[in-house]
Amino acid sequence: MVATHRHEISTKGQGDAHDVTGVVARAVSESGLQAGIVTVFVVGSTAGVTTIEFESGAIHDLAAVFEELAPKDGEYRHHLRWGDDNGSSHVRAALLGPSVTIPFRDRELLLGQWQQIAVLEFDTRSRRREIVIQIVGD
Amino acid sequence: MVATHRHEISTKGQGDAHDVTGVVARAVSESGLQAGIVTVFVVGSTAGVTTIEFESGAIHDLAAVFEELAPKDGEYRHHLRWGDDNGSSHVRAALLGPSVTIPFRDRELLLGQWQQIAVLEFDTRSRRREIVIQIVGD
Amino acid sequence: MVATHRHEISTKGQGDAHDVTGVVARAVSESGLQAGIVTVFVVGSTAGVTTIEFESGAIHDLAAVFEELAPKDGEYRHHLRWGDDNGSSHVRAALLGPSVTIPFRDRELLLGQWQQIAVLEFDTRSRRREIVIQIVGD
Repeated sequence: MVATHRHEISTKGQGDAHDVTGVVARAVSESGLQAGIVTVFVVGSTAGVTTIEFESGAIHDLAAVFEELAPKDGEYRHHLRWGDDNGSSHVRAALLGPSVTIPFRDRELLLGQWQQIAVLEFDTRSRRREIVIQIVGD
Repeated sequence: MVATHRHEISTKGQGDAHDVTGVVARAVSESGLQAGIVTVFVVGSTAGVTTIEFESGAIHDLAAVFEELAPKDGEYRHHLRWGDDNGSSHVRAALLGPSVTIPFRDRELLLGQWQQIAVLEFDTRSRRREIVIQIVGD
Repeated sequence: MVATHRHEISTKGQGDAHDVTGVVARAVSESGLQAGIVTVFVVGSTAGVTTIEFESGAIHDLAAVFEELAPKDGEYRHHLRWGDDNGSSHVRAALLGPSVTIPFRDRELLLGQWQQIAVLEFDTRSRRREIVIQIVGD
């Protein structure tokens, strides 16, 4: 049994983060499925999904480590290819991955109390982002 | 068809790693399901799950790279927020992710011979950790 | 309902990357399943899977960041253990993770237009790699 929920967000470019826990919890609760897994997947190659304690300090700290790992103003062959300026975005997104998979039981996500689902924008400009919330269970 | 197995471990703080391959293999074998996927998920925002050759050398090498990426004694805005000292834990956990998803067939995990499932503690203190082993298949 | 597809590739050692999007899309389309999730899993502890815009510039940029994170010629305790030279491979593989999970609907992967599924070889020598494409849905 599969339920698909789509969710769109508007992001403000590199470093922007969105807490989608409430949207995912609602999609699971309304799916009619009792137990299973939900995959939260961001469409595109310059954003990522993970879990984190969603408070501005931790979000900032994570962004700072990404900036060290793959600096926005570094040199990227991807720039030469397309004249783009988002080589850092592609590297960060590939490292983090496009999805996270979370178990649920009794229609509730089995997250920790301080563990939220975060969509991270890595692109260098504002984007419309489609999030696919794919629920598989019974 | 879904089977849920919960497993608790006691960890010794940042750098501690636990091999849960045996527990996950047993949960799959006892679920009665023949084929599918198993999601191994750690509850909380300061631990992570991955696969690795579980020997002390590789575990140490991975911890050393995390210490370079997000040093325990670095400066984190998360510390200012709560007076915590575990900003490095949150960053490492978000980078690695809280879960890994592994296929199984004929009731057996399709892992490599030297590929184990590791729960990594990133928090700066000892913790009780709940691992959810969510099995979906038929 | 579960369908398992196995795919083998030959890789050329550290830095080599393979686009398996076509293989995965075909496996999903031929599975007979309409909607669900597909887990693309690489067997072994010295390779990884992610999504990326699969063009040589971005692939190179990602490899360069991995080389900074865990240099091939760095010092690794794993080397002392086995006399191996692939400590960097184990660290990179554990950081990236062995699998990615992607939703599908109407027999089609819900990837972005520039988002491909990449298997990354981290080992220091050529390898035969087995990829398990595990499809769960209905």
